Amino acid sequence: MTRFPQKLLDGYQGFLHSTYRKRSERYRELAASGQRPEAMVIACCDSRAAPEIVFDSGPGEIFVLRNVANLVPPYNAEGRYRSSVASIEFAVVSLGVRHVVVMGHGRCGGVAAALDDRRQSLDDGDAIGHWISLLDPAIERVAGGEGYDPVRHVHVDHPEDAHVCSGHDPRQTAVECMSVRNSLANLRTFPYISEREADGRLTLHGAWFDISEGMLWIYDEEAEGFVPAIETHGMSVQK
Amino acid sequence: MTRFPQKLLDGYQGFLHSTYRKRSERYRELAASGQRPEAMVIACCDSRAAPEIVFDSGPGEIFVLRNVANLVPPYNAEGRYRSSVASIEFAVVSLGVRHVVVMGHGRCGGVAAALDDRRQSLDDGDAIGHWISLLDPAIERVAGGEGYDPVRHVHVDHPEDAHVCSGHDPRQTAVECMSVRNSLANLRTFPYISEREADGRLTLHGAWFDISEGMLWIYDEEAEGFVPAIETHGMSVQK
Amino acid sequence: MTRFPQKLLDGYQGFLHSTYRKRSERYRELAASGQRPEAMVIACCDSRAAPEIVFDSGPGEIFVLRNVANLVPPYNAEGRYRSSVASIEFAVVSLGVRHVVVMGHGRCGGVAAALDDRRQSLDDGDAIGHWISLLDPAIERVAGGEGYDPVRHVHVDHPEDAHVCSGHDPRQTAVECMSVRNSLANLRTFPYISEREADGRLTLHGAWFDISEGMLWIYDEEAEGFVPAIETHGMSVQK
Amino acid sequence: MTRFPQKLLDGYQGFLHSTYRKRSERYRELAASGQRPEAMVIACCDSRAAPEIVFDSGPGEIFVLRNVANLVPPYNAEGRYRSSVASIEFAVVSLGVRHVVVMGHGRCGGVAAALDDRRQSLDDGDAIGHWISLLDPAIERVAGGEGYDPVRHVHVDHPEDAHVCSGHDPRQTAVECMSVRNSLANLRTFPYISEREADGRLTLHGAWFDISEGMLWIYDEEAEGFVPAIETHGMSVQK
Repeated sequence: MTRFPQKLLDGYQGFLHSTYRKRSERYRELAASGQRPEAMVIACCDSRAAPEIVFDSGPGEIFVLRNVANLVPPYNAEGRYRSSVASIEFAVVSLGVRHVVVMGHGRCGGVAAALDDRRQSLDDGDAIGHWISLLDPAIERVAGGEGYDPVRHVHVDHPEDAHVCSGHDPRQTAVECMSVRNSLANLRTFPYISEREADGRLTLHGAWFDISEGMLWIYDEEAEGFVPAIETHGMSVQK
Repeated sequence: MTRFPQKLLDGYQGFLHSTYRKRSERYRELAASGQRPEAMVIACCDSRAAPEIVFDSGPGEIFVLRNVANLVPPYNAEGRYRSSVASIEFAVVSLGVRHVVVMGHGRCGGVAAALDDRRQSLDDGDAIGHWISLLDPAIERVAGGEGYDPVRHVHVDHPEDAHVCSGHDPRQTAVECMSVRNSLANLRTFPYISEREADGRLTLHGAWFDISEGMLWIYDEEAEGFVPAIETHGMSVQK
Repeated sequence: MTRFPQKLLDGYQGFLHSTYRKRSERYRELAASGQRPEAMVIACCDSRAAPEIVFDSGPGEIFVLRNVANLVPPYNAEGRYRSSVASIEFAVVSLGVRHVVVMGHGRCGGVAAALDDRRQSLDDGDAIGHWISLLDPAIERVAGGEGYDPVRHVHVDHPEDAHVCSGHDPRQTAVECMSVRNSLANLRTFPYISEREADGRLTLHGAWFDISEGMLWIYDEEAEGFVPAIETHGMSVQK
Repeated sequence: MTRFPQKLLDGYQGFLHSTYRKRSERYRELAASGQRPEAMVIACCDSRAAPEIVFDSGPGEIFVLRNVANLVPPYNAEGRYRSSVASIEFAVVSLGVRHVVVMGHGRCGGVAAALDDRRQSLDDGDAIGHWISLLDPAIERVAGGEGYDPVRHVHVDHPEDAHVCSGHDPRQTAVECMSVRNSLANLRTFPYISEREADGRLTLHGAWFDISEGMLWIYDEEAEGFVPAIETHGMSVQK
């Protein structure tokens, strides 16, 4: 029998003997009653930005779609097996989640690949190439944004004044943030989403997670910029 | 500004003040050096079966694709935006993960939908319907399996002897397990996967997580059945 | 062989497979280098108010004395084996901690016993009776405090205006808080403490933990009252 | 107002926003109903060996006495304020715990001080000197134990065969373990303990925690030696 990765087995024991031991009743209850999560989170596959860790979520709390670069394709994209669209449909229509959060993050490998002019196909099928072409509109909108602070959405006279957290590359950060906004726009092309948003059953949210400093930035749709959760929501910050 | 879900904000504070506070150096290091996860985990969006929780994983450890019913489509499936295939390509070819784990779970809503004869489309596009049609081969292989123990892959004379954990429906459990096996077979239709598996750079694994009892079952390819991690790997069990 | 309590063994496995697994390097390092905690915490034995949990402390961070009702006897108390005095001497003089925190808590069984007029000795030796007689000065100072808010140290015209958190008994809460202040006063009778406080090497602090609401109140020596940590220190509060 | 230690405030926020947030119902319930812990743990003040961490305990589970070197004085020791004896009396007679565990640990500063021939009083009162004189019987019993494995309680022909974990000093380890046995013997001089042990209401246990490797050794009274919890109790070990 092939040896299962030891690190995962060790971790599974940690789960079993600590998390599960302390909350076995909750797991049994959730297994019996079915899940009723309040929110769906659309996040990247990145190993450093797991939604359950960033939101310290317990079992049953968030329904999570993860793909490279946390992208939402437009509603009418062709294709027989559209896993991301299917997952959104299931969350919104079948489970009736009340919130959908698109969460981008800093230093995203998928965004970096899309920005790399010398990028070569990883495979003949080039699935990743097609997938990250969904970032093209964000890249175009960001182009020429001299003196632009990509996160706060303000213009700055000197590039060095741009708020670029934790040594992130300003252009990549700008694309990461713009892409979250594009995904929100794409979500609104789904009839069952725009309908539910209109009558108040559903709310859409954008966020961007700074891996290095652990900071979560939340998209302010009116200001068209991102603001730190700790500022807007009366949180205190870890010094 | 739209109010971000309070539960997520509360949870984010927990992350910030506990997990991040204790491991900020690791986060900074990972942000600077980039991710190098050893394993990719393909799991369901279900809110009760997050891989980072089940494997008690720290930042940087696992690259995670999540879609409804943790399915892998065949390599040649048409479609412009194939998020699952793209994520696999990125993990295997670009990041060079050494393990891919397909983890199914009990009481899966996607599998239940596929088994529901009266299921109706949730949307005109019926993305979920097309997506879970990937379960058809598993459903067919399971059909007529009277007296069959779906998890352990053994025949039993009396249906009630079938090992069906924690009150799970035997037919659904059988499909969940068979589907993990189908996804492994589909992964092997990807040229870059079969090649890497052949020369030892990559290993594929199947698993099934019993939400109710917290038990992880690992697929034994030779025996064609699943065995509890705690039995096969010298683990002790939580009484 | 006598069976070790199963609950502790289960919990130890949780530690081993989760906490220790994630921080084994830190444990090895601390074992090799010895401990150098910055703070000593004097707390109650109560099973609901463990300092390492309330302060989310990692290994090596706090040196902890625990006795019934978190009391500090006066320096010159007679007796051959004075474990509390010995522990303070070791922390302050040998380890050189820079902070000593006396943390009381709500619904303290030791304080309740001291306030119970019908209390009977639990044992001929009545060690507990002698020990909690250290609460007598606090009880006396609180007596007759009509219209007094025991936590905030303000006078109120109507008893019902007294800030009594979470349904705590006002008189008991008053004694718990006054006792923290008495313990601070007793600490200052230790020559090596008053000397170190005078020259700035050591700072003394008082706190009171409300088990029910998870609130930590911090003693303000100038105001002679307790204030919530979340108010004085710019923290946000869990709604 | 004196500044409360920032590290403790940061940690308190972690507790408030993570542990307390997830278990506030349990805290409220425990505050209302009172504590009913099943076990008392007598442990050292050492910052690297907190019982709640080693036993991954939730609120309400263990009643904890902590003093330097986790010592239990004899029942009849004189002295007005005997905090350790008082805490034991409260746990056993008033709370009615069913287990008392004495847990020693490796590299104990209190034991090291007792073994240091050149040790000088830290204070005129020398409370620590009197307190650790409780270790004298253990030191005497260990003296001359050439070729003796202090943990496993077996004789070895060559000193280097002695099982001394993680680079611990063999003599100090021997005293740490012997002292746990002495404390168990001292507990049996308490009339209310021997009585309860005789009629089965109470069980006494010894343990020794190896900080470096995270290993817990449990005392086997019949064999007069310590055995790893992972061996005796069918646990698996973290590789």
